[in-house]
Parts: sequence; C-alpha cells; structure tokens
Amino acid sequence: MIPNAVLETINAHRQRYLDDLLDFLRIPSISTYSQNSPDIRNAAEWVLRQLKRLGFHASLRETERHPIIYGEMINDPSAPTLLVYGHYDVQPPEPLEEWTSPPFQPSLREGFVYARGATDDKGQFLTHLKAMEAIMEVEGKLPLNVKLLVEGEEEIASPSLKPYLEKHRLELGADAAVISDGSQFSSGIPAITYGLRGLTYFQVDVTGPRIDLHSGVFGGIVANPIQTVTQILARTKNEDGTIAIPGFYDDVIPLEEWERNEMASLPLDEESLKDYLGVGELTGEKGYSILERKTARPTLDINGIWGGFSGEGAKTVIPSRAGAKVSMRLVPNQKPAHIERLFRDFVMSLTPKDVKIQITTMHSAEPVLIGRDKPGILAAERAIEIGFGKRPVYLREGGSIPVVNWFKETLGIQTILLLGWGSPDDGAHSPNERFRLEDFQRGIRAAAALMYENLI
Amino acid sequence: MIPNAVLETINAHRQRYLDDLLDFLRIPSISTYSQNSPDIRNAAEWVLRQLKRLGFHASLRETERHPIIYGEMINDPSAPTLLVYGHYDVQPPEPLEEWTSPPFQPSLREGFVYARGATDDKGQFLTHLKAMEAIMEVEGKLPLNVKLLVEGEEEIASPSLKPYLEKHRLELGADAAVISDGSQFSSGIPAITYGLRGLTYFQVDVTGPRIDLHSGVFGGIVANPIQTVTQILARTKNEDGTIAIPGFYDDVIPLEEWERNEMASLPLDEESLKDYLGVGELTGEKGYSILERKTARPTLDINGIWGGFSGEGAKTVIPSRAGAKVSMRLVPNQKPAHIERLFRDFVMSLTPKDVKIQITTMHSAEPVLIGRDKPGILAAERAIEIGFGKRPVYLREGGSIPVVNWFKETLGIQTILLLGWGSPDDGAHSPNERFRLEDFQRGIRAAAALMYENLI
Repeated sequence: MIPNAVLETINAHRQRYLDDLLDFLRIPSISTYSQNSPDIRNAAEWVLRQLKRLGFHASLRETERHPIIYGEMINDPSAPTLLVYGHYDVQPPEPLEEWTSPPFQPSLREGFVYARGATDDKGQFLTHLKAMEAIMEVEGKLPLNVKLLVEGEEEIASPSLKPYLEKHRLELGADAAVISDGSQFSSGIPAITYGLRGLTYFQVDVTGPRIDLHSGVFGGIVANPIQTVTQILARTKNEDGTIAIPGFYDDVIPLEEWERNEMASLPLDEESLKDYLGVGELTGEKGYSILERKTARPTLDINGIWGGFSGEGAKTVIPSRAGAKVSMRLVPNQKPAHIERLFRDFVMSLTPKDVKIQITTMHSAEPVLIGRDKPGILAAERAIEIGFGKRPVYLREGGSIPVVNWFKETLGIQTILLLGWGSPDDGAHSPNERFRLEDFQRGIRAAAALMYENLI
Repeated sequence: MIPNAVLETINAHRQRYLDDLLDFLRIPSISTYSQNSPDIRNAAEWVLRQLKRLGFHASLRETERHPIIYGEMINDPSAPTLLVYGHYDVQPPEPLEEWTSPPFQPSLREGFVYARGATDDKGQFLTHLKAMEAIMEVEGKLPLNVKLLVEGEEEIASPSLKPYLEKHRLELGADAAVISDGSQFSSGIPAITYGLRGLTYFQVDVTGPRIDLHSGVFGGIVANPIQTVTQILARTKNEDGTIAIPGFYDDVIPLEEWERNEMASLPLDEESLKDYLGVGELTGEKGYSILERKTARPTLDINGIWGGFSGEGAKTVIPSRAGAKVSMRLVPNQKPAHIERLFRDFVMSLTPKDVKIQITTMHSAEPVLIGRDKPGILAAERAIEIGFGKRPVYLREGGSIPVVNWFKETLGIQTILLLGWGSPDDGAHSPNERFRLEDFQRGIRAAAALMYENLI
C-alpha cells in the first residue's frame, strides 16, 4: 500500500510536475513529418534526461526511424518487474486554424492543458515518471523493478517496435506491463480495459474478362466481376445482420454475467450517439446492447470496394476487374488464422467458375482478454481507487492495440494493464487536444499506488 | 429494279470512286480534338462539294460545335423519300505507333484501304454518294426523293444532333432512313440489323454515417453503406443469372421461331470468342444461344462500384458513402420508364431504414425492332442480294444506337435500315482501321439498288 508521504509529495509538487509536462508539450515531436526529426530527437533526449535524473540505467536505442528510449531500475531481481510503455511522438496538429491556442504552446484554460500530445500520450505517459519521482524522493528506491520502453513511432504505426521487441525479448522480460494511452470510460469514471477485439483483414480481387468490355456488345455472355464481388460479399451476412460464414461464431466465449451487468451499468446516451454519427438509427446484432455490440461482439465490415466506372455520367462497361477490402473484428477466443481459413473456404465455395479470384490477407491481430482475476488487474483496481477516489469500471474496447498483442506474443507478458487516465472528449488526434489537470494529478497518484500493489 | 447500265457504270468508275474515298480519308477530321477544327470544316466542305456536284440543294448547318451538312433532291413530292445518314468525323488515331501506315495517308494493301475513318464511317457513307453519282450519270435523276444528313460529332456522342432533329423535324420527314455505319455479320455474310437493345442506366448512392468511422470503435452498431449497396445489388439477380426484379420480363416479346433459326444458322466460334475475352467459360441465361444472349435478351450489369478505402494496404474504415452504376439492356417491348419504376421500387423495398439512398436515372434508350415484313426491309434484302450477290442475314445488335431512337422518336421514321457494309474485323476505333475495297464496291451497288426498290 502506497505510503501517505508519497501521496502528499505528489500533491506538494503539483506545479513542478505540471511545469515538466508543459516543457515536454512544447517539443513538436511529430513523427509523421521528416522536417520534425530534430524535434523528435529533442523529445527523446528530454525523456532520457528524465530517466537518468530518476536514477534509471537508460539509453537511446536507434531504429531505422525514430529512437526508442529504454531504461531500467532493478532493485531486487526476485521482486516483480513492471514494464511501463509510452510514446513521445504526437500526431500532426493540422488543421492549424481550428486551434484556439497554438498546438505547441501549451495553454491552461478551465482546468485543462491544451496542446498537441496533452493526452496522447505525453501527459498520460508522464504520470508514471512523476509517480516514480515522488516515490524516489520519499523512499530513495522503487518498491519493485521497473523497465521503461518509450517509442517515437506510435502515431505512424510503430514500424520499428515489433522488430525491436523480437530482438530484445529477454531484456524486456516483465511480470506485467502498464500502458496509459487511452481514456477513462468518461471523465470521472476511471476504467480498466481488460478486453480488445482482434482483427483479420482481407483483400479480394476478382478478374473476369481480359479487358474492359462494352456492355452492349458483350452483356449477357460474360461474368461481371463487380457482380461476383457483390454477390459473394452480400452472402457473408444473414438477414438479421449476423455473420453467415459457417463456423464463424464457434470459438466465441460468451459474455459472462458480470461483464454484461458492468456494461449495462454504464451511462450511454443513445440519442447523442446517433446525433454524433448522423444516423437515424443504430444497427447491429439482436440481443446485445450497444456497448456489447461495439466492443465485445465480432463484426464483419466491407472497408472498401471498387470496380468499373465511377466518374460522372454513364459508361456502359463490363470491367475486367473488381475488388474489395473486407475485415472482421474478432473476439476472444476467435483465432485470426482459423477465421481466415473459414473465410477463404466460404468465398471459394461461392465463387463461380467463370471468374478468377484472389484473396490476400492484409493484416491480423489476436483478440485480447486479460482475466479479471489476474493479481495485476486487482492491483490496478486498488491503485485506481486510491488515485481517482473511485472504483474503476471494467471495459472492453472494440479496436485492437498492436503493442498489446506484441507484448503478449513476443514478450510473453500476460498481464497487460490498459489504464487510461484521459477522457474520451480530450480530442486526441483532433484540434484543441487537451488533458484535464486533475486527471494528470490522479494519474500520477494511481501510477504511484500501482507500484505498491501486488502485481503477481 | 436497278438498271444494268447503272451497275456497269459503278463497275467502270471503280478507280475514280476509290480516288474520291482516298481524298476524303486524307482529311484528319477528328471531332475530339479542338486543334482539328479546321480539318473538320474541310471535311464538311468536302462533303458539301460532293452533294452540290450531284445536284443536291445542300448547305452547311452550323451547330455549337461541328457543322451538319444537309442536302435534298426532291424529284417528285409524291414519290417515297429516303433519308441517308452518315458522319464525316473520325475517332482519334492514337496509339500512332501501332499503325503500319500513317492513319491519314491511306494505304492500299491486300485488297484493303487502311486509314482512320476507312470503315467508320467515311467509306461506308460514301457508298451512298457514289451510288447516286452513278445513277445521275446514267439516268440524269434519282428514282426517289433523297434527303442527306451528315454530322461531324458522331464520335463524340452527337451532342448537336438531337436538338437539330427537333428543330428541323418537318424538313427531315422521310419514309425510311438508311444508315451504313456498322458491319456485315462477317466479311462475305451481309446483314440487315433489324433489332437493337435499349438501355436504362442508374446511379445508386447510399449514405450511412455522417462521417467515415473507425471500424474498431463503431463496428457493430452502424450500417455500412458498402454492405447495403452490395446486398441490394446482389439481390437483383437470381441464382441462375436471371434478373430478379419483379415484373422485369413481363413485356419481353419472345424471340420468334424464324429469328432463333436465323441466329442458329450463323457461324460463331465459341472457342475463339472465349480466347478473345480471356475467360474460361461464357456465362448467361440458360436456354438461349450466345448470340441470343448478347443481342436479344435483356441483361443487368453493375458498371461501376465504389466506397471506402481502395488504396494499398489496410484501412479499417466504415465509410460514410458508397455507390454504384447499374444498367440494364432492354429488349422489345420493355419500356425504360416502366423498368425504371420497377427498379426503383425493388431497390427501395430492399433498403434498410438505417441508411439513406438516392437513385438517379443517368440515361435511357428504347429498344428497337424493325418489323421484318416492312416493305423497306424487304427492299433492303433485295438490294443487298444485288450488291453482294448473297441474301443478307437478319441480325439484332446488343447495343443501342442513339440516332436510331432519335429518328424513330423525333422524326417518326419507323423504317430505319441499318445496312453495314463493313466487317467486324475492320478495326473501327482501333489502329490500322481498314475497309475492304470489294465491300466498298458492293456497298455502292447495294446502295444504288436500294433506290430502285419499293421502300413503302
């Protein structure tokens, strides 16, 4: 249990920690733009200085693009080890004209700090450093071993991270990992994200005639690849919106009673959601709530389709080719490799002989479920109660987070704590991104408390 | 019946008529390119001079783009009147490097003249002028009244012609029209095209959410407009390839016994057709021959489809919009306006409430069937027998020819004689376009013979 002195220290240094955050936010470490490479390096070195000041054994690790910072502080090899992940790069700030204050001149207004990176992820990540700073100040050492991994390519899909993890698998070994790069359920309702959907993503290419043909001359004797694509894809769903691929649901673990109760207890304003989406009504699988449908049930979406003439006016063409991108969100315990086999078999079984078809797997990610009974999860629950003064709710998320899969699959870490200190309306990736000063403070407290709880 | 002296004269002037054709072919009257406007005018004036030399009362009629030439020779107001249509413009010749001889330097090789416009339509159209030239030389007058309408915008979809016809409806009144701008069934098998398919062409636009959404965050609760489009369009066809729109076939006039026999008698090499199309097998409606399917049965084709992400890689988007272009080839007696109603009703009945849909009619054309018992058709049959030494076969064509519909609907001409003197392998619109010298000669004979036959 965290000593009161640490909490008091965090409280006492509120302004100093904030000043450090403002300092960090002033560095325009946009990973997308090559002209910001010097800023990226500045941000990486800023983090490195912070770690060294804390007493970490830390260094910059060069990658093909932006450096990774790795640091460790091993107090007792027999104690549990926590891996803390964060990223120091930020999204491009455009459109600039929509910002009330400049994106890299942090502005304090109405209890928020406004700046690019405020919530994603500089503010959230920094809570862990400031938590350790307070602990070190009071106790002179951390109550467990900590490894820190901070990358500068998260906003460009982390191309260097996976190879880095593979290469440094042993060095990065840990009992649990913590990632604060998300959000609470809503401001004031802290959350632990214990489930993520997986993904499997395909491109389907259909070829009919050798060349584009005139539909007047050849209409009636050749297969039209657009029609084949639409006919196949239309068959992937049943009338009621469920997925018609045989065996698709076989490995789905049904939602447990407590999960459904937890989701049902969360406030969700259907009307304002519809307004935000601009739809007359929501759709989806019968028998499941909105939250269940968007986070804990598998889906199939056609993400793109193309073929033939799409310009203005009319062109009577039977195209040679058509194609589509199709993806499925998977839930525990569906396996992307198995679903791929089912999808391929299903599509092939529907493909007429008069066209050629090619199915390419573009991407896949395993769904994730961190057992609620894992000691690390219970530790996080207690830490959040201390930091936020409130029991966290348990959430699943509809998307996948690649780093979580890589930590599981490459590093073998089973307890991955997704503890978002931000709020869904912080505007990550949008103009006027912000972070609530109170959430920064609560996050530091929770991050510090976590280090004193039993992770294993 | 055509006097022998006329046929002998045609034979005697073989070289002179050919020289005139070569002259005509040297003018690069490409309607597409504005830099060829002077050439377009040269070609129009070339035609005008020909008409005046024949004794036609003729003039250039300016349009917004390229001039129309109109001429008439009314010998006896009580005699039948034949309207002869042609066009003096040609397709662009590109790709130039594929031509064996330059496109506007006509080259005679192995019984053909090679040049852009040789078959489409300068060579075919000129047969009618040379036929009249021979008749005038022998008889001093034509055996019927002739009106000549020659446009310079056929290759750019005739934008000025329809308004011109509407404005000059009375001036252009005729008992029959003849158009030589197509081909025989194959070289040496002359044909009369007595049927054309019609067309109705729609754009379907579906809107789901207000903005593109992340499929991880919102997959499972919003309708995906691509899925709606594919599901609706997939339902337009039955398993056996027939069209599933209720009532679609109601007005189709079944093929008559003689038509099916005529089509069955025509040589058609399925293997080389498959090779040309690059397909393993042909497709289409059961119970109908290839020729029936591509010329005399209605079809539905998706001519284009779009929505979402079609770039390289994977993007997990649920798009706001998707759409498609859909057209149906219609056969007598299907009415585009009625089919439009059926299509709209069908699509609306399949559209779920969770998306918005818009159906736009882009284009439509009535199918055409010129009764085989029409005196003009029988006259054409006899004229072709004289010109080609062979009874013509009766053909339907799968496409529509706008000028035929306009002649029918605007001018009220019911007997439209589609007498193609070219050959399907003449390469209209392609490099090395050609016209068989023998077909030029046969065409002149047939065109002359037609003037002596009973058109009404």
